[in-house]
Amino acid sequence: MTNRISEDDKSNSKTERLGRLRKLMAEKGQGALLVSQPENVRYLSGFTGSSGWLLISGRNAILATDFRYVGQAKGEAPYFQVIRIKGEVRDWLPGTVSDLGWHKLGFEANFVSYEAYRKLSEAIKTNQVNLELIPTTGIVEQLRSIKEPEELGFITKAVELADAAVEQARDVIRVGMTEKQAAWEIEKSLRQGGSEGIAFEIIVASGPNSALPHARPTEKAICSGEPLLIDMGAKVGGYCSDLSRTLFLGQANKTFQEIYHIVLNAQAAAIEGIKSEMPASQADRLARSIIEQAGHGDAFGHGLGHGVGLAIHESPMLNPSSSDSLADGMVFTIEPGIYLAGQGGVRIEDMVVLENGRARVLTKASKDT
Amino acid sequence: MTNRISEDDKSNSKTERLGRLRKLMAEKGQGALLVSQPENVRYLSGFTGSSGWLLISGRNAILATDFRYVGQAKGEAPYFQVIRIKGEVRDWLPGTVSDLGWHKLGFEANFVSYEAYRKLSEAIKTNQVNLELIPTTGIVEQLRSIKEPEELGFITKAVELADAAVEQARDVIRVGMTEKQAAWEIEKSLRQGGSEGIAFEIIVASGPNSALPHARPTEKAICSGEPLLIDMGAKVGGYCSDLSRTLFLGQANKTFQEIYHIVLNAQAAAIEGIKSEMPASQADRLARSIIEQAGHGDAFGHGLGHGVGLAIHESPMLNPSSSDSLADGMVFTIEPGIYLAGQGGVRIEDMVVLENGRARVLTKASKDT
Repeated sequence: MTNRISEDDKSNSKTERLGRLRKLMAEKGQGALLVSQPENVRYLSGFTGSSGWLLISGRNAILATDFRYVGQAKGEAPYFQVIRIKGEVRDWLPGTVSDLGWHKLGFEANFVSYEAYRKLSEAIKTNQVNLELIPTTGIVEQLRSIKEPEELGFITKAVELADAAVEQARDVIRVGMTEKQAAWEIEKSLRQGGSEGIAFEIIVASGPNSALPHARPTEKAICSGEPLLIDMGAKVGGYCSDLSRTLFLGQANKTFQEIYHIVLNAQAAAIEGIKSEMPASQADRLARSIIEQAGHGDAFGHGLGHGVGLAIHESPMLNPSSSDSLADGMVFTIEPGIYLAGQGGVRIEDMVVLENGRARVLTKASKDT
Repeated sequence: MTNRISEDDKSNSKTERLGRLRKLMAEKGQGALLVSQPENVRYLSGFTGSSGWLLISGRNAILATDFRYVGQAKGEAPYFQVIRIKGEVRDWLPGTVSDLGWHKLGFEANFVSYEAYRKLSEAIKTNQVNLELIPTTGIVEQLRSIKEPEELGFITKAVELADAAVEQARDVIRVGMTEKQAAWEIEKSLRQGGSEGIAFEIIVASGPNSALPHARPTEKAICSGEPLLIDMGAKVGGYCSDLSRTLFLGQANKTFQEIYHIVLNAQAAAIEGIKSEMPASQADRLARSIIEQAGHGDAFGHGLGHGVGLAIHESPMLNPSSSDSLADGMVFTIEPGIYLAGQGGVRIEDMVVLENGRARVLTKASKDT
């Protein structure tokens, strides 16, 4: 069900990404980089297996993987030299890097554990290899935050599947159904619509449960008039979507009618006001100030949004302490919420792409309660 | 569909686990421990959210989590003091630990990134907190590797769901169906049978694809006579099962008939020969020697098996370089395989529990091709 692109297109996008990475590495004075974060590996090489390491320099592009994935790696990553490795990173890396003649190697410090680093350092010493390990953060993530047209195509498809599933949920979900049953109905819609699995565990939270922003579906039956918070996403070509709606089966009480409109206004203000080059913390402020003015500042305990792509949470992060800046080509969520402990919560979440300096809303699902 | 146990039972198992952990920490001279690995957090506290830290000493049992999970944490972890944190670990940990008067803190070195460690060390220095961070590995994992009766109950349920799904797959999967369609049929069986999601992405690999031990389902149509490798698992009460079968729709050719019997014999030898107190590497040998003798040693490129519990891969690891020892109460897979590149592969996987020194097979699914 996914948009198919030709092998040639795929290869071109991968070689272009390698080119952009090498340029960025050069700017940062980074001669060689070890990439281990799975989405970064996939983004650069096309390899989708769960265990692979990239070794990238100005000259080399190597994909190291074990027995289980060598065949798959060769098929998926034609622009990389695939080498078969055995054991832990400390077992093969010192020798491989020594053979390449590299003396400095950047690694992704957020994705290499302290223990793996410690063992690797030890092995480098023991084998008397002349190699300095340099911690890096956010290099490939910076590239990934700006989406190419091909990536936006996959994301748009994933958004459409989520839109369709929430519309179907309105028809299917009834008072008396449990949260778990409702979540399974939504998952079936997504999967049968062509989604590759789900982007994350679907949230269906009703009544007081909806006040827990990351609630899991329970055996609680959905009641009339209480908030019914649905948060879910599809996956197409590896790319995620993310969509929240808060519905009411029957008439919402006055408190939640008011809260719903505050959240809706906060979201509209953010969508309207967000601009490229804006600090992501300022984008968060656009919505948060409205919720604060309405007296619910303490009840909006998470950030306004997050980038979405191969990962469900990626750069940029939109929250009060973010140091990210927004830029054309970024795709992220705008999802203000108000949560009243013991009563319930409202969250409304759309996905947007920044184009020509402004936010274009990708999500089409209705916001009628 | 899951076995329900009373709240009292749950709490007792959690306090017993805390007691065992404290005893093990005392044996290792570990005064206080920071637990961050999600399954370890769940095992000890009952908290199932995706973001929480445990701070455990002889006297304290604290669960630190952010806004999103405070309500859930209080409900799920009644034996822990829940504290609300904000920001990264470096932002809250130095102050919290300083207030507790701790001067040494073990951390899980395999699950804390190099970057988180570096930032935390820096924050400890900046805040002039008298705290030494001590890398640890495998402490909670050691407890988790021996299953309690309650845990074995969940696992047995998860095994039954996988058994039923593979039997249903025999009825449903037909020549001409794609691998992806077959995988979705299996997933529906698991989920509609009561599984909490799936234990891992289902593998359905046919013909040459079955030679890739971790293949993902593709749009390839399943043909008559070729190996059809299915690898999947259910989840009940958070506990996983893991089951592989290799089927043939129609008559297998002679090569694969032979290979199937070699793998089956290797598995039977392992099931028969495995004993408690045996080194896990020796258990691997029981099956591997048979495959080697048949001339296919190079075509069995993965370990014989792995522990299964809250995680799909956990202690013990059964492979040639494992340093684990087997013990009563351990639950693990026995899954020899032979993979012929370009042709196809055979893997047969059961789950066993070690009881009274011997392996009792939990899996009941037929091994008829």
